[in-house]
Amino acid sequence: MSAHTAAPDGTTAPVDAAALHRDAIVIDGLIVAKWESALFEDMRRGGLTAANCTVSIWEGFQDTVDAIVRMNALIDAHPEHLLKVRSTADILRAKREGRTGIILGFQNATAFEDQLGYVRVFKELGVGVVQLCYNTQNLVGTGCYERDGGLSGFGREVLAEMNRIGILCDLSHVGPNTAREAILASSQPVCYSHCLPSGLKDHPRNKSDAELKFIADHGGFVGVTMFAPFLRNGVQSRIEDYVEAIRYVFKLVGEEQVGIGTDFTQGHDQAFFERLVHDKGYARRLTNFGEIVNPLGIRTVGEFPNLTAALLKGGFRPSQVRRIMGENWLRLLDTVWAE
Amino acid sequence: MSAHTAAPDGTTAPVDAAALHRDAIVIDGLIVAKWESALFEDMRRGGLTAANCTVSIWEGFQDTVDAIVRMNALIDAHPEHLLKVRSTADILRAKREGRTGIILGFQNATAFEDQLGYVRVFKELGVGVVQLCYNTQNLVGTGCYERDGGLSGFGREVLAEMNRIGILCDLSHVGPNTAREAILASSQPVCYSHCLPSGLKDHPRNKSDAELKFIADHGGFVGVTMFAPFLRNGVQSRIEDYVEAIRYVFKLVGEEQVGIGTDFTQGHDQAFFERLVHDKGYARRLTNFGEIVNPLGIRTVGEFPNLTAALLKGGFRPSQVRRIMGENWLRLLDTVWAE
Repeated sequence: MSAHTAAPDGTTAPVDAAALHRDAIVIDGLIVAKWESALFEDMRRGGLTAANCTVSIWEGFQDTVDAIVRMNALIDAHPEHLLKVRSTADILRAKREGRTGIILGFQNATAFEDQLGYVRVFKELGVGVVQLCYNTQNLVGTGCYERDGGLSGFGREVLAEMNRIGILCDLSHVGPNTAREAILASSQPVCYSHCLPSGLKDHPRNKSDAELKFIADHGGFVGVTMFAPFLRNGVQSRIEDYVEAIRYVFKLVGEEQVGIGTDFTQGHDQAFFERLVHDKGYARRLTNFGEIVNPLGIRTVGEFPNLTAALLKGGFRPSQVRRIMGENWLRLLDTVWAE
Repeated sequence: MSAHTAAPDGTTAPVDAAALHRDAIVIDGLIVAKWESALFEDMRRGGLTAANCTVSIWEGFQDTVDAIVRMNALIDAHPEHLLKVRSTADILRAKREGRTGIILGFQNATAFEDQLGYVRVFKELGVGVVQLCYNTQNLVGTGCYERDGGLSGFGREVLAEMNRIGILCDLSHVGPNTAREAILASSQPVCYSHCLPSGLKDHPRNKSDAELKFIADHGGFVGVTMFAPFLRNGVQSRIEDYVEAIRYVFKLVGEEQVGIGTDFTQGHDQAFFERLVHDKGYARRLTNFGEIVNPLGIRTVGEFPNLTAALLKGGFRPSQVRRIMGENWLRLLDTVWAE
């Protein structure tokens, strides 16, 4: 693959997209795939340097620890492909050694239960990113699929502890009031790790231009997702539709505060999606995704190099592509995780 | 305080016991006191460099995590006195900075429940020493107060994981068959962190000469305790009786494999001791301690300097006192914890 982009002298020079991808830091801000050998091999095929891998959605404390225990065992079983990320130094090491760094992440704060001390416990177990709410109300605030009364008192304490301990706050599935208050309350940059602009498609999970600008104006970060039901062209989407969404966000938030957050769900069956769209995993239905298929050209993690090529083809400069593909994520994580 | 000991040239030279204590690495291999500010201040008064502090006896997984959370909060609240120990470098740092390093330890394997993966989880939370059984039978083996069928199959897996992950195996309250099999099965040195010789007093918790020699012959370690009910002179004991027990063990195992493990219970009430002497903390009674009072001269943690003085007075050379008071513990921990 190659593309032509403007060189510093104004001429155009061919860019070897595959070579750029191989050389770049590639960080996926959200993967919620089925954790198994096939997926990890695909991560290496896709040239992923690191990924935020979800280990808790509706689970409480001990079930979440059990999920981490299973992930630890998988990482130990694939030392040639994987390593566990506790710092950005680990991400750089993964890059050097041709492995993929696994960042443990939560999509809900339920694993903290009612204990502020569990924030540090999970940090010590390797958790680097925590989304405050998943779709509905919890002890911290409210998700994006119901009326949102904002960040709770306990939520402010949890967020302050996350700031202190060094866990990145994710607001992707969080409701607009809780998200706004968290952005204002946080002493560290926060993120939407995986979202799409409602400027391209109106949906409760998508973020308005004002919301995207608000998080960026407060030093925050936006990872752009490609989950087909939230894309303008739905399941008809191609990788160019993903690039369009990235460009839309890029223009709103600037080239240093945007990245990738695919939301790959590779390997999961229908029962998994049913758990996602019911409150607590089993209670009332919140939404109906309909058919789920990733955009043509990036249906699997292994096709990640196509995204680098598509961004170049879409007119992004190589330095911008590097930022979008991972350098921006790396800098954000370095800021938030630093002791 | 001072004492006269043999100098290298055969003459005797006065030794300043207080100065030696201040300069020495002082490690207590077992404290199960009430964790509160007064105790931590007393640790500093006693010049403790580090201590193995019990955070689990009968508790399961989550209750043990909660105990660690409480200890984390206490350590955070006393940064001038305490730091959390994860490595021997942390112990040396505590010495340099005039603080006491808190080593988290279990006196039972119940916190692992039935999950081998929890061994690593607790290591990541800072646990450095785990006793396989506390007085009675658990999933791993059997304690010293009931018939002991030896190390279970699961126990062998737990011990192998402790060896792999770097958690020191403690056998103080473990039954003789389980202890013997653990000593043989372990790929790392193991310890009795706090025990007394049955050669001085016959008691189910005390260890025979053969047992003490067996662990030492297999590279293991013996921390000598001073819990009055197990000392020859019981509650009439003085610090000299403790020194006598240390000398007894020292002669059996050699000067490099012996240390201190006081079993200080400072600050606890009668209900605490009732929990200790009942299986599971509430079931059948296992023993009756009677009156509990530490030997005169070392009734509290703050009196630790008296032990250095008493060892010197008892004829130990300064280099031997340094080893007994902490250098031997440090080397053992360095061996077992090393990655």
